[in-house]
Amino acid sequence: MTRQELSRLIRQKQSYLCVGLDSDISRIPKHLLSQPDPVFSFNKAIIDATREFCVAYKINTAFYESRGIRGWESLERTLAYIPETHFRIADAKRGDIGNTAHHYAKTFFETFGFDAVTVAPYMGEDSVTPFLQYPGKWTILLGLTSNEGSRDFQLQKTGDGEYFYEKVIQQATQWGTADNLMFVVGATQDAQLSAIRSRIPEHFLLVPGVGAQGGSLEAISRHGLTPEGGLLVNASRAVIFAGNGPDFAEDAAAAARQYQQEMQACLEET
Amino acid sequence: MTRQELSRLIRQKQSYLCVGLDSDISRIPKHLLSQPDPVFSFNKAIIDATREFCVAYKINTAFYESRGIRGWESLERTLAYIPETHFRIADAKRGDIGNTAHHYAKTFFETFGFDAVTVAPYMGEDSVTPFLQYPGKWTILLGLTSNEGSRDFQLQKTGDGEYFYEKVIQQATQWGTADNLMFVVGATQDAQLSAIRSRIPEHFLLVPGVGAQGGSLEAISRHGLTPEGGLLVNASRAVIFAGNGPDFAEDAAAAARQYQQEMQACLEET
Repeated sequence: MTRQELSRLIRQKQSYLCVGLDSDISRIPKHLLSQPDPVFSFNKAIIDATREFCVAYKINTAFYESRGIRGWESLERTLAYIPETHFRIADAKRGDIGNTAHHYAKTFFETFGFDAVTVAPYMGEDSVTPFLQYPGKWTILLGLTSNEGSRDFQLQKTGDGEYFYEKVIQQATQWGTADNLMFVVGATQDAQLSAIRSRIPEHFLLVPGVGAQGGSLEAISRHGLTPEGGLLVNASRAVIFAGNGPDFAEDAAAAARQYQQEMQACLEET
Repeated sequence: MTRQELSRLIRQKQSYLCVGLDSDISRIPKHLLSQPDPVFSFNKAIIDATREFCVAYKINTAFYESRGIRGWESLERTLAYIPETHFRIADAKRGDIGNTAHHYAKTFFETFGFDAVTVAPYMGEDSVTPFLQYPGKWTILLGLTSNEGSRDFQLQKTGDGEYFYEKVIQQATQWGTADNLMFVVGATQDAQLSAIRSRIPEHFLLVPGVGAQGGSLEAISRHGLTPEGGLLVNASRAVIFAGNGPDFAEDAAAAARQYQQEMQACLEET
């Protein structure tokens, strides 16, 4: 999916919501556990309920890997079920030297068929560029994350007086373009979001951390939205675990609709 | 495996060799491709041929993931085949916020049964500590890697005038101890290796990059060995792809034996 197509999708649906399928088997409704693949049954119901309100789905690989091969089977079925109209992100945060990074890129772009994968920057250029070489695919590089631990390294200053995450963003924009590179920017970091937006006016930002992690959608949108959209805002637990009973899918739909309506209002103000 | 047990193993075998099973299906001998699981058949032959000369095996997850579910099946069979006498490392370089990191730790320590997993530091403390909480298991944190891209961020200076990778090592030693935390230090970085060893005299270092990546075993050993051992030196392609014909396993054994003999000489000098 190109940047223009993603922008058009956001305009059409009046939404920049990404639903995060952090489908922890210990948290899904108990009545699904008798299904042959409970995680897929859960995801299928969530996708059916939320597809109208979102433009993207993000599969967090940890919640699938932790179940071993059965987990990868659930991931594969889930990915195949996500409508092709939607942007499909593997939240895998991979990062390794060039030769190995090629294999990770192949994993998510060829073997599975995601549109995008999240990548960790610590190992530098040759760990990132193999992902950028896939035509029509997206690399979403960790910039500034929303967790407590972001202070340990990302928010340390470099010798040049800038934050370390700013160095990461600045370097990476020399490796990729706004047409194949996005950045993860945590939703709890409003103050930095607007600085990042000035520095990279055209790149899409993937913002996790609204809802359960506590970021404000209004503030994110005010600082991050561009005329093209320029944002994907992810909600995981706040949507998929909005309810836990027989009506869990309706509860998820209501939560996703609520986000979509708030996003529509934000888009109208931009 | 405890630190004492690992040290004893190194003394007994007069080796600190880790064989990296970067078993790229496109590079294994062609006659194996008719086997039901060619990658497992290859690994099995490599393990049989090299187990006498090494103390650890490292499975690089990228080479397995890139084949999808079949790849994870090869990984599972391979792990089950590695003798319990050997230290088993998942080279996965995972790193995510706390809630997700718990699932990655579970993946490698419970679902599979590795002794250790490599972890990326960019997201800070809460992305690392879930791995450290597993009794008897090891976290191997990326410190200074051997690739070209290590210059982009790891070798940048912080505001305090130290290298960024030094900050990572210093912080992480507050989260874990020499009994549950090792660091990856690239073999092409001799000059730094001795500085790291002075800073952390007791921690084990996992050193990739001898052989195909060009580091010198003698220099690494001179700077990194401690009375306890304190090193695991990894060779992947230089051992597993030492030959490519019907005698590939004998060629791998010869390469591993060569490393073991050089290591024995280095241990005698320490």
